Amino acid sequence: MKNDNCIFCKLANGIIPTNTVYENEDFRVILDASPATKGHALIIPKEHYANIYEMDSELLGKAAKLAQTIIQKETPKLACDGYNVLQNNGETAGQTVFHFHIHLIPRYAGDDAAGMLKMGHIGYTEEDLAKICEEMKL
Amino acid sequence: MKNDNCIFCKLANGIIPTNTVYENEDFRVILDASPATKGHALIIPKEHYANIYEMDSELLGKAAKLAQTIIQKETPKLACDGYNVLQNNGETAGQTVFHFHIHLIPRYAGDDAAGMLKMGHIGYTEEDLAKICEEMKL
Repeated sequence: MKNDNCIFCKLANGIIPTNTVYENEDFRVILDASPATKGHALIIPKEHYANIYEMDSELLGKAAKLAQTIIQKETPKLACDGYNVLQNNGETAGQTVFHFHIHLIPRYAGDDAAGMLKMGHIGYTEEDLAKICEEMKL
Repeated sequence: MKNDNCIFCKLANGIIPTNTVYENEDFRVILDASPATKGHALIIPKEHYANIYEMDSELLGKAAKLAQTIIQKETPKLACDGYNVLQNNGETAGQTVFHFHIHLIPRYAGDDAAGMLKMGHIGYTEEDLAKICEEMKL
């Protein structure tokens, strides 16, 4: 289901040219046009799903396996020291294009992205955490 | 394959008690003890894999589908506005425990994690990107 108003539908389906690293029937893997590090790539499904809430479950499984393959193969090519896999859902979470995508971000010792994925921490007590867990139990 | 020296093997397999949100034969989903936001959880496989490079591919697909299920079910419970899915590989990438895990980070409008996943951008030219793409093509 292509969405005519979606830029990532156009990129994933080759309607707008991209720097394509890999393509198969379900996905296109392209270089991010504003990369955090050298080799920063995006896995984009050719079908339109706004986010992980909507994403087809089987396709999501395939996307994860593809992420692994890309990371395994690009690490020696890029001579990077690790990888962040990041997938944002919702504007509050930093999602800027509302077509599901996975960021694959190679990391290099001393890279400028060092502060990028640094997390703050909330000082919950043991009791706080146990209470939150009760709320969340599935 | 349990690793006696691995804290996450002990957490995932119930040897050390945790705030467990969900558990099945392959994974345990627990609250992060130092959460970035309320409800920050980790999906941890019961078997030991250091990172995505080592992770069993089928299990990785299952982990992604489980992430989706957890996010879909926890969003109304937590009344959050979105979710970051983050998976770090290598010390340079911010991995601190060397047992594969996926961060599920609920996000709330105005939360303190707002700067957390903000990415810097490298000012590559079109030519730079095309050249990097050539190096990376699979």
